[in-house]
Amino acid sequence: MATHQEKEKENELAKLSSPSPPPPLVLLLRKPAAFSMFGEHLFTSNKFQYLKAYDSTLPLQQFLTTKNARSVQAIFSCSGAPVNADILQLLPEARLVVATSSGLNHIDLEECRRRGVAVVNAGNVFSEDVADCAVGLLIDVLRNISAADRFVRQGLWPINGEYPLGSKLGGKRVGIVGLGSIGSEVAKRLESFGCCISYNSRKKKPSVTYPYYWDACELAAKNDVLIICCALTDQTHHLINKQVLDALGKKGVIINVGRGAIIDEKEMVRCLLQGEIAGAGLDVFENEPDVPKELFALDNVVLSPHSAVFTPESFMDVCELAVANLEAFFSNKPLLSLFVHD
Amino acid sequence: MATHQEKEKENELAKLSSPSPPPPLVLLLRKPAAFSMFGEHLFTSNKFQYLKAYDSTLPLQQFLTTKNARSVQAIFSCSGAPVNADILQLLPEARLVVATSSGLNHIDLEECRRRGVAVVNAGNVFSEDVADCAVGLLIDVLRNISAADRFVRQGLWPINGEYPLGSKLGGKRVGIVGLGSIGSEVAKRLESFGCCISYNSRKKKPSVTYPYYWDACELAAKNDVLIICCALTDQTHHLINKQVLDALGKKGVIINVGRGAIIDEKEMVRCLLQGEIAGAGLDVFENEPDVPKELFALDNVVLSPHSAVFTPESFMDVCELAVANLEAFFSNKPLLSLFVHD
Repeated sequence: MATHQEKEKENELAKLSSPSPPPPLVLLLRKPAAFSMFGEHLFTSNKFQYLKAYDSTLPLQQFLTTKNARSVQAIFSCSGAPVNADILQLLPEARLVVATSSGLNHIDLEECRRRGVAVVNAGNVFSEDVADCAVGLLIDVLRNISAADRFVRQGLWPINGEYPLGSKLGGKRVGIVGLGSIGSEVAKRLESFGCCISYNSRKKKPSVTYPYYWDACELAAKNDVLIICCALTDQTHHLINKQVLDALGKKGVIINVGRGAIIDEKEMVRCLLQGEIAGAGLDVFENEPDVPKELFALDNVVLSPHSAVFTPESFMDVCELAVANLEAFFSNKPLLSLFVHD
Repeated sequence: MATHQEKEKENELAKLSSPSPPPPLVLLLRKPAAFSMFGEHLFTSNKFQYLKAYDSTLPLQQFLTTKNARSVQAIFSCSGAPVNADILQLLPEARLVVATSSGLNHIDLEECRRRGVAVVNAGNVFSEDVADCAVGLLIDVLRNISAADRFVRQGLWPINGEYPLGSKLGGKRVGIVGLGSIGSEVAKRLESFGCCISYNSRKKKPSVTYPYYWDACELAAKNDVLIICCALTDQTHHLINKQVLDALGKKGVIINVGRGAIIDEKEMVRCLLQGEIAGAGLDVFENEPDVPKELFALDNVVLSPHSAVFTPESFMDVCELAVANLEAFFSNKPLLSLFVHD
């Protein structure tokens, strides 16, 4: 009869000789930009393997019913690839969604919660880039940088002489809608320009000394500039409506680096056309990539194709964060940028 | 016989009854923009009166030979109106030139010194506006704001998809050429974006902790971005030459809010066209208002019509400063923004 020790040895040998199970599958819905930019090999791991939906010729729904897909344990959603109830239903083993954005309005968070699926986002990786863009848009609108660039390129400087004056940044009262990671970075930057900061968010932040306004309308009335930095939720959809735009007034400027639908876009376009607000710097729109064509003729708006978050440095960082989250998940370690449901 | 007291009283009465001499004359070469913007009455004084060369139909030289002009005691030069030896020669009583700019390359400083004519400039009034513009141009070039705005306005977003990525501000090494009032304001702002600052100037500044490079070429080699904030002098003319641009390199960006001729413009245009530097944000040019036409087709440059200093707030401030300088001068009080010759 084999001793206990002999048995243990036997087991160990059996373990070593038997083929190890294949690494768990991570569904990649769209190809991450960082793969093409820096090489996919930088983002692989021995802890998991990618199953690439974008490499299949099958329609997504059909692809997800294949045997392989049904065993997927984590979903990697980049470039705003939606993760909705239909998709989650076809992936019964999935326990994690990794998003590469800060905003999660393309993920059905309620369904994830119901199914016990954890969600991680880009954390604060993009905050600095988005804040840089918000400040860039504000300087551009106040100081007419893009409009004056068009004026010079059209050869009008020698003909028309000086370009109309812009407006000084220093002393401007800037109201930030949503003082999270992005909003705080915007505030930090604008303080160095001598702007006066106040903010609106669901709750007053105890650690912050900027004046707080619970009501977006009051924030608009008290400021020269509104900068939209919050997430799009049911509560913030069309938060910036006619009433808020009226309160901002004829000399007011609006900057949006949040999501298009936080502003009632139709109303904002009307206000811009009729001079009821002074200008706008917009990185996001309600129906991207469609931008209201009436804006194309206006010199007091700056239009940006939802590129506030896009720098190669951030793409690298966010893809590294995604892989680190996946490795943590498959090693039963704490996730690095867990999204916490309200 | 009249007593001493009686005589004194007599003198006083004579003073009161005799017509007081007309206030001294200040020659206004061009009309200050602030006059039209805010009303000339805000900038008048009982200490002097304006003699407006721009209201006369006579050519300037001829106008200056009139009896009135020859008694001018101070010259007010705005909008870059030159004050050269020819003009000074015709104004033998002039003892002060008031310029409304920070740079004084349109004033013959040597001739002023020789004649004992004091010169005041705009002091630091414009520094913040110029710094704001420099930062705006840098964000614009790095993050493609103007170029992406053109892309959106041309309706290309739905057709071509995403716009090429920009580059992150945080971590960029920024070399400031000329760490005076403007350069210091630029540095303060860019620190809040996480940029690493170093500088070049004639002398190391004991109160500043940023790394100092005596040689512009070395500054360029050690940095990702050069921002030109210095004055145009014989020493800084074409300071940024082929050698410095080569040292800046293929990934380097140059921002100029100083004067056009500080850069060898022809060489810079060649570098931009041939990809030997990565981009440029230019508020000033060698032969304004002419801008090298080759730049009009480039998406990696932002062109601004020498408007870095132009906000209504600053026009007001600089005109108030000019008047305060004139009042001080005619009251024998210290000048407020005296330019000190080297």
